[in-house]
This record gives sequence, C-alpha cells and structure tokens, in this order.
Amino acid sequence: MEKILLGPMPYMSVMPTLLVGANVKGKPNYMTAAWATVACMAPPMVCVAINKMRYTAKGIEENKTFSLNVPSVNQVVETDHCGLVSGAHEDKSLVFRSFFGKLKTAPLAEECPVNIECTLFTSVDCGSHLLTIGKIVEIHADPSCLTEGKPDIEKINPIIYAHAAYFDVGNQVDTAFSAGKKYRKQ
Amino acid sequence: MEKILLGPMPYMSVMPTLLVGANVKGKPNYMTAAWATVACMAPPMVCVAINKMRYTAKGIEENKTFSLNVPSVNQVVETDHCGLVSGAHEDKSLVFRSFFGKLKTAPLAEECPVNIECTLFTSVDCGSHLLTIGKIVEIHADPSCLTEGKPDIEKINPIIYAHAAYFDVGNQVDTAFSAGKKYRKQ
Repeated sequence: MEKILLGPMPYMSVMPTLLVGANVKGKPNYMTAAWATVACMAPPMVCVAINKMRYTAKGIEENKTFSLNVPSVNQVVETDHCGLVSGAHEDKSLVFRSFFGKLKTAPLAEECPVNIECTLFTSVDCGSHLLTIGKIVEIHADPSCLTEGKPDIEKINPIIYAHAAYFDVGNQVDTAFSAGKKYRKQ
Repeated sequence: MEKILLGPMPYMSVMPTLLVGANVKGKPNYMTAAWATVACMAPPMVCVAINKMRYTAKGIEENKTFSLNVPSVNQVVETDHCGLVSGAHEDKSLVFRSFFGKLKTAPLAEECPVNIECTLFTSVDCGSHLLTIGKIVEIHADPSCLTEGKPDIEKINPIIYAHAAYFDVGNQVDTAFSAGKKYRKQ
C-alpha cells in the first residue's frame, strides 16, 4: 500500500510524561516534558528537549543541574498543570513537595515514584529547543514501587504521552532480547 | 516515605520501540532502539542513542542519513530479532521490505506503519553511546493508520519498551494541555 507523506513534524510514537525539576532564582520549579529518553548507558545519561524560552531553561543554565521526575497516572492533573503555566508567571514550587538528594540545586518531587537527579553534561542548540543532556547522579525510588529492588512498571503506573493525550501502560506483549528468538527467515 | 537510592543507571519510565534504518556498505540494515525521542520542534528533529560499536553507527557515519521506523505490536518478533543479531554477522536487509523516500540512503521499513527519514544534524559523544540527532526530512505513514490525516495511536498500535519488556498502549487517561485546568492549589 502506498504511504502518505505527512511532511516534517516533531513526531514520536510514544513518550514518557515527566516533570523537569530545576531551581530558578533559588526556588524549585517543575515543567512538564515528554521529549526525553536515555542518552547513554556508560556513564548513564538522559536527555530532554526544552524550549529555549522556558523558565526551566534559565534554571538549568544557572545551576548546571536538573531532575527528571516520573509521575503516576493519579498525578495527571498536577503534571499537566505544570505544562500549562510558566514559572515566570506563577510560583509552581508548591505543586509538589520538593526534596534534595546529592545535588543541592536539583529539586525532586516527593510525590513522584521515581526521581532522577542530573548534572548538565551538555546542551545542543537544535533551533527552538535545547537538547539538554544530563549525567545521572542518583535515582530515588519510592519503596512501594519496587519489586526485588527494581522499578516495577505496574506499581509506578507511569503516564505515556502521545498525540497530545495521556495514556496508561497496557499489557505486556513480549519480553525484550527474547521475542526475536522466534524469528524465522521468510 | 523515605525513598530508596538505586544509584545511577540508564533508566527511563517508558520508551518507544523503534527500528533505526541505515544503509551500511550499500545495504539496508535495521537495528532495534528504544532510547529515542523528539529533539526539537522547529526544525523538527529526533534523537536516538546508539552504541558506538554498532554496525548501524557505521552506516550513519558513512551516509549522514538514517530512519526511525515505528513497528506495530504484531511486528514484535521481527523487531526484537533486529536487536538480537548484528548486521556485522547477519544480513538483516530482508527482515523488512525496504523502500526509499526523499533520501536515497535511509532505508524505510515498508511493514512499519510510520517511517521517519532524517539527515544527520549532529552526534554527541556521551561515552558508550553516540546521541545521534537527526533533522526530519519526511514522515511516511500507512493510510490505514491515519484518522483525519493524522497518525492514530490505536491504529498504529506501537510497542512500548520499559524494564526489558514490550507493552502495548493502555487506555487514555486524560487530554494534554487540558487535564491541568482541573488543578486547584492545595
């Protein structure tokens, strides 16, 4: 079947819904973000695309630290709120209870089951957005979201972002690094 | 509740499961990848972390082009297979039917409902991985996966990658840029 051309647009099939935490002018601020992923295995790094005009970008530039916080589906209202209003206009420091880990300028959202604290590795100027790459310094997890000491996706119940909507995770389809063993050449 | 420290590791809550397409030594090759996201809105860009030792990395370096292909849940076996074997040892050019769009060196997997073709913008050396940033040149979509001309997540039925397992997308929880309007200060 002939494919249809959609033109260039910032498309990705599914993405994580996260809160980027940064101190701005000495105060915790949280920004909703979905354009994020793992950037490196060794050392462990993550990246997140942030619009240059964002209040959060100023805080990261100022402190060279930030956090990525993983909210649960039951935090979808607070999470989306942090994407609707800018810290430049409204104090978002009390939307979540903040705590600090190893870094004293990367606020972590207590209510989120997983918090990733990062030092800024580098930022790539891509145009409208800075692709902000952070070296992971520590990961904090709620004990209720772990199974045998590892993050458990069912217990975390993270929010998927896709096509301007939020979804929960469905059923397990298969196991990675295993499903492919069933492959037979056509 | 006191959080538990997990130490630095390459963690992300949920990720897309993709196939990175690249011509290597003139032949299409597909590599499974999940460490990918949107990198920029204007111009539209994506990024994907690729282990430096990967056969695919050589092809991208050679041609300065690559593709990201979005498989459906029903392609999980072929998709995982492309992560289990290296193109250096096995010819993967026939796992999917390849076609070419605007770029003549970025193979696109016909069976995948969405294909994103890219020119290499830049690569960031993060350590074990190159964070490969691509400018989107065109997006090709199967007409059966569109609703009113836009990609429809239910029809695409993409594979989520998390915690070394594959999942499908669950139910819609809420609408982005809208759910937050229900937020009331505590």
